[in-house]
Amino acid sequence: METEKRLNAEQKEKLVKLGRDILNQFRNLQNPDIKLPIRTLSNIYFDEKNKLIRLGSKVSHRTYLNVAHTRKFMQTLLVAAECKKIIEQNVTISIRDLYYALKHTIPGTKENTFEEQEESDPVIEDLEAALNTLREQLHLKADRKGYLAGNIIIHDSGDEIDASKMGSSGWAIPSNVEPDVIKFSNLEADYILVIEKDAVWQRLNEDKFWKKEKCIIITGKGQPDRGTRRVVNRLHKEFNLPVYVLTDADPWGYYIYSVIKQGSINLSFLSDRLGTPEAKFVGLTTQDVEKFGIARNVTIKLNQGDVKRTNELLKYVWFKPKEWQTELKHMLSKGYKLELEALSSKGIKFITEKYLPEKISKKDFLP
Amino acid sequence: METEKRLNAEQKEKLVKLGRDILNQFRNLQNPDIKLPIRTLSNIYFDEKNKLIRLGSKVSHRTYLNVAHTRKFMQTLLVAAECKKIIEQNVTISIRDLYYALKHTIPGTKENTFEEQEESDPVIEDLEAALNTLREQLHLKADRKGYLAGNIIIHDSGDEIDASKMGSSGWAIPSNVEPDVIKFSNLEADYILVIEKDAVWQRLNEDKFWKKEKCIIITGKGQPDRGTRRVVNRLHKEFNLPVYVLTDADPWGYYIYSVIKQGSINLSFLSDRLGTPEAKFVGLTTQDVEKFGIARNVTIKLNQGDVKRTNELLKYVWFKPKEWQTELKHMLSKGYKLELEALSSKGIKFITEKYLPEKISKKDFLP
Repeated sequence: METEKRLNAEQKEKLVKLGRDILNQFRNLQNPDIKLPIRTLSNIYFDEKNKLIRLGSKVSHRTYLNVAHTRKFMQTLLVAAECKKIIEQNVTISIRDLYYALKHTIPGTKENTFEEQEESDPVIEDLEAALNTLREQLHLKADRKGYLAGNIIIHDSGDEIDASKMGSSGWAIPSNVEPDVIKFSNLEADYILVIEKDAVWQRLNEDKFWKKEKCIIITGKGQPDRGTRRVVNRLHKEFNLPVYVLTDADPWGYYIYSVIKQGSINLSFLSDRLGTPEAKFVGLTTQDVEKFGIARNVTIKLNQGDVKRTNELLKYVWFKPKEWQTELKHMLSKGYKLELEALSSKGIKFITEKYLPEKISKKDFLP
Repeated sequence: METEKRLNAEQKEKLVKLGRDILNQFRNLQNPDIKLPIRTLSNIYFDEKNKLIRLGSKVSHRTYLNVAHTRKFMQTLLVAAECKKIIEQNVTISIRDLYYALKHTIPGTKENTFEEQEESDPVIEDLEAALNTLREQLHLKADRKGYLAGNIIIHDSGDEIDASKMGSSGWAIPSNVEPDVIKFSNLEADYILVIEKDAVWQRLNEDKFWKKEKCIIITGKGQPDRGTRRVVNRLHKEFNLPVYVLTDADPWGYYIYSVIKQGSINLSFLSDRLGTPEAKFVGLTTQDVEKFGIARNVTIKLNQGDVKRTNELLKYVWFKPKEWQTELKHMLSKGYKLELEALSSKGIKFITEKYLPEKISKKDFLP
């Protein structure tokens, strides 16, 4: 509770400062100006030392006395004021709620503050980047869809959740998993396994894979939401656990891995909180087809989109390590991809009893 | 465990009988024939007494010695055999796993058993309808995405999950919630509230609405998956609780309500297990705009698709009650719809402190 109060006070102070600075500019008859980090590819770089996608130092100015900026300037202050209000009320709302709460016709005009949610969402990311904070800390909720199981206790709003006693469900990962809200204790595990697909996660949970192999299993159901990525990041940092990622053998699965590992372009300002550079890729690869004698008829022919995307990945600096170049070229030369479920063709328990234990014990990873 | 064993034995026996009947037909030099209920609109009717969408008695024949049927006949037996196998192994797999486990080239030919999952999925529904069972009882998993919170204990695989102590997450509803796997106890609630949107569910959970109002809150994140609908059905039947449904005021929200209430055309053979005819609609309606003084600028103009869909709903027999005809025509005449989040324009806590308590205490429902 104390941490929560302090954090709320910190966030509120950032917002109050933003407002006070602008007020002072008005008082000094200056053109009010909000400085915002530029969040496009032109201001992104790969931090070789920390192995994270980072935001550069280029800044744009959103000024009040510029007709092209005035509307966005007003919207930025509206969003900041609403965030301050919900922090004071100690409630959390969705980014859609925020849009509706702020949408109104400006008195004496026919102008609406916002026309579409597409106008308010980027303003939230602007504020996150400008204030060096997370939308979750501004009491805004993103989508949630992840699950976790294993020997760990989760502390949330006074409740203690034992993730080893959640039956077939697992712990549903909430959107806000910041340390002031969610705490972890009693962890007993040797590594974290992040699985692209929920169906595969359920297969592993049913076999109590996390118990037999002493690990934590997590799924983000496709591209993981922010909460899920943050949990992986926190568990890795707080408990010094290795992270292994299991996806389909296709460019989309490999990209999911890269986002878990070094963050994404769009949220580059959050890479140190959402990325886990030490993560390793345990599978699936197209090279596994021969290695494990997987039948050719469960592979899927690459389509045009797959080939195009694979060629893009080949050029990303974070896919430059030779093991990845080999795998991506192997996929193109074979002309096929495969899904995790393809392992079922070797028997339903092949993935839990043979594939994963063998790959992990041999440390047969891609970097 | 005993119930589980008995149920597994029952399901297995159904599958064995299917196989044995066909074998006998072969032995008697008959043309092997599988009888399957027809699952299209032509064989659907609205059961006025029970208020459920039902499957009629028309049956199609899938015969071995008909070139147009032979491939599907083979596929039906393959799926049935695989289900028997996974029941014996006591494992659960996804319908995608099933497809991969069965896909192979028939020896001596270039023919694959299945080309796409679109071939195996309908065969599963055929078997469900023919054997009067659920895919979950055949140990097959569907998608899951629902959450639940409230004063109730869930018993799952030997674990006891207290849905009043799940923090911001709630209990994640698994895909198989049949009584042999999931049991409920210690329920303390006056009604069940089913909410279309997870963001609204989270808002209600954060305000501990279920505690203050003594209810169970459930979301299916849009159109609820089978597990979520089955939980609503079971809680209603086993604890005799009223069910109230809260969706957006648009034809898609109203259709979600109708599926929760009387089942769907596609899964009409499961209506008595997935439908809850006694459910009531608590909101949102377009008539609420005037009733609660909601600002016109948070309403959304109906588009062509909305108008078309609303006109279709007007014709469905289950939307014939005059209250629904009034609402649907009101929507068309006003030309707008609105989302649950629009209530935030009246203040973040308006939905939990005013809208829902008032509507429920006044029993201001649509039938």
